[in-house]
Amino acid sequence: MRHALALARAVLYTTSPNPRVGCVIVRDGRVIGEGATQPPGGPHAEVMALRAAAAAGETVAGATVYVTLEPCSHHGRTPPCVDALVAAAPARVVVAMGDPNPRVNGAGYARLRAAGIEVCTGVGEAEALELNAGFVARMSRGTPWAWMKMAASLDGRSALHNGISQWITGDAARADGHHWRARADLVLTGMGTVTKDDPLLNVRAVETARPPRKAVVDATLSISPQARLFDGTEVLIFTAAPAPGRAAALADRNARVIALPDARGERVDLAAMMRWLGQNEFNEVHVEAGAGLSGALLTAGCIDELLVYLAPVLLGDAAGMVRLPLLEHLEAARRYVFTDMTRVGADVRLRATSDAHWQQLLASVRGVGQAGAQP
Amino acid sequence: MRHALALARAVLYTTSPNPRVGCVIVRDGRVIGEGATQPPGGPHAEVMALRAAAAAGETVAGATVYVTLEPCSHHGRTPPCVDALVAAAPARVVVAMGDPNPRVNGAGYARLRAAGIEVCTGVGEAEALELNAGFVARMSRGTPWAWMKMAASLDGRSALHNGISQWITGDAARADGHHWRARADLVLTGMGTVTKDDPLLNVRAVETARPPRKAVVDATLSISPQARLFDGTEVLIFTAAPAPGRAAALADRNARVIALPDARGERVDLAAMMRWLGQNEFNEVHVEAGAGLSGALLTAGCIDELLVYLAPVLLGDAAGMVRLPLLEHLEAARRYVFTDMTRVGADVRLRATSDAHWQQLLASVRGVGQAGAQP
Repeated sequence: MRHALALARAVLYTTSPNPRVGCVIVRDGRVIGEGATQPPGGPHAEVMALRAAAAAGETVAGATVYVTLEPCSHHGRTPPCVDALVAAAPARVVVAMGDPNPRVNGAGYARLRAAGIEVCTGVGEAEALELNAGFVARMSRGTPWAWMKMAASLDGRSALHNGISQWITGDAARADGHHWRARADLVLTGMGTVTKDDPLLNVRAVETARPPRKAVVDATLSISPQARLFDGTEVLIFTAAPAPGRAAALADRNARVIALPDARGERVDLAAMMRWLGQNEFNEVHVEAGAGLSGALLTAGCIDELLVYLAPVLLGDAAGMVRLPLLEHLEAARRYVFTDMTRVGADVRLRATSDAHWQQLLASVRGVGQAGAQP
Repeated sequence: MRHALALARAVLYTTSPNPRVGCVIVRDGRVIGEGATQPPGGPHAEVMALRAAAAAGETVAGATVYVTLEPCSHHGRTPPCVDALVAAAPARVVVAMGDPNPRVNGAGYARLRAAGIEVCTGVGEAEALELNAGFVARMSRGTPWAWMKMAASLDGRSALHNGISQWITGDAARADGHHWRARADLVLTGMGTVTKDDPLLNVRAVETARPPRKAVVDATLSISPQARLFDGTEVLIFTAAPAPGRAAALADRNARVIALPDARGERVDLAAMMRWLGQNEFNEVHVEAGAGLSGALLTAGCIDELLVYLAPVLLGDAAGMVRLPLLEHLEAARRYVFTDMTRVGADVRLRATSDAHWQQLLASVRGVGQAGAQP
């Protein structure tokens, strides 16, 4: 399973909106076939591994198949993987986690078992879920998995009092940040950052054939068509002010304006924005914004994970990382769970996840089939 | 050497103002004696190890001695360890680092070599120095090694806007903080903290036979004799305002008032305070203060190391960790090097060291004898 997870990790930048899946077929302690999900429209991991075994003249009958996600049981862009597996007749299929996609949701397990194949689940579950948190979030709750990337000094300052913020963290941290952009389906920022930094918002420092889309939260639709992030690729602009004239001018820059005003019509309804993204097959959102939008997304419960780069430097009185409503008690603070800490060049990267959000994903992959999926 | 370092680490709380030293004697791949420095006045590590070998009926002649610090060559509270080593006649002495004590400073090496004993140095040097940074700092630059303990949210906030700060980090982080208090010779705070929290400032959660001294920076000598930190043990009060009447009242509480005013007579000369501490055999200072004194100590260059506990929580607009002069450029920021990151309960502990200060210590233990120490 460790090898299958590594195969899935190797396609981190290419399978979306499909999940990243790896598959390894083993007989007599020997790998006889392996594969990973191909870009959308291409074969899934199981089919790739079965083809590799066939090409090597190996027979899969009686073998053990390790796969990082429940095999699909429905006709999507490709035929169901369970059909191919049943035809190949392995003795056993070991799966890391269930697929909460309503069109699978335990039916893959059921079809394999009905064919007399032993099914073993939950092996390497946490790692498999980490690789596909976005896919599972979209399938189980209808919104993408969103992380917020922040860079700050050890005392939590993201800019000097005069606005200087480039660069608090070092080259290695910035390159690592681009890995996270590349993995995501969308890179999201706010108008404060566009105005202040005029960012390109693209992926550099990492090779990717499938760059993420870009998006800006721009309540008043005031972004300049000359902003550097308009590079010909489609840019989503979430706004509270439809303003058809300006939207038309932006359309020339390949901007797609989506009006999602809140009840007062003043701000973008951020929760509605996340639902829109889920409906439009965005699995993972990389937020890289200033203290204002960052705080608003946190307050709206739209952030699942924090990705914080800290530089070994103290800045004292300077701009904070997030703007949040004043708290009267520490118990009211938003709590996370540290999931990883890594040195990145001279800096450290801390990941902290909302435990409630993570547990909900875990429950959804463990609960497949329990709400009565039909084989 | 790893075993000798572990022996030294085991006496972390007891040897001060002497260095923590471990010694292991090996013959034919077998440990024939080991020991660590005893509390002041007691035998040093080498003598403990030689005694253990003798007690076990082992002969040290021809053996290899591993010791984490250059053996002393002078009569201090105990006779010179080199004399005992020369008498035991090992073939080889392997040493982690030189002793910059002006009364040793290479003379230990020279005496061993003159007796025909092979001396090998620098094995496990960084770990040995980490164990005795305070001793080496005092010997080489005349001031203690000082670390600043801070606890904050992931976005660098150490209290809410209303002053609430207990407890941002968890029980495990607080217990770990007491380990650092226990290791130090002095726990230092400022009047802001005394007024706000009335701390005990003692060591809890860790057993220690040698609790650190307590000290308060109190420029106006305004501390109340009823403050909870007065528990009968001697408390140092550094002030800029001699005020003999108040000093006498405080003396009843076993407070020792030390007047070290700066040039304007308004604040405590913090650099002079560190020199005073060095002259009075304080090796390590644990600073646990508010943003004001913390910032002033940093600005005065008195801090060698940051010990930062971060909780996986965001607080937004709230009190910062340190008050520092406004910076106009990031290049002007005080930079450190991350040396350790560890999970402590739900929190993380980051250690960051001033690289310039550390390199100066390293140079001093490597340069022993080069300025012409006499055997």
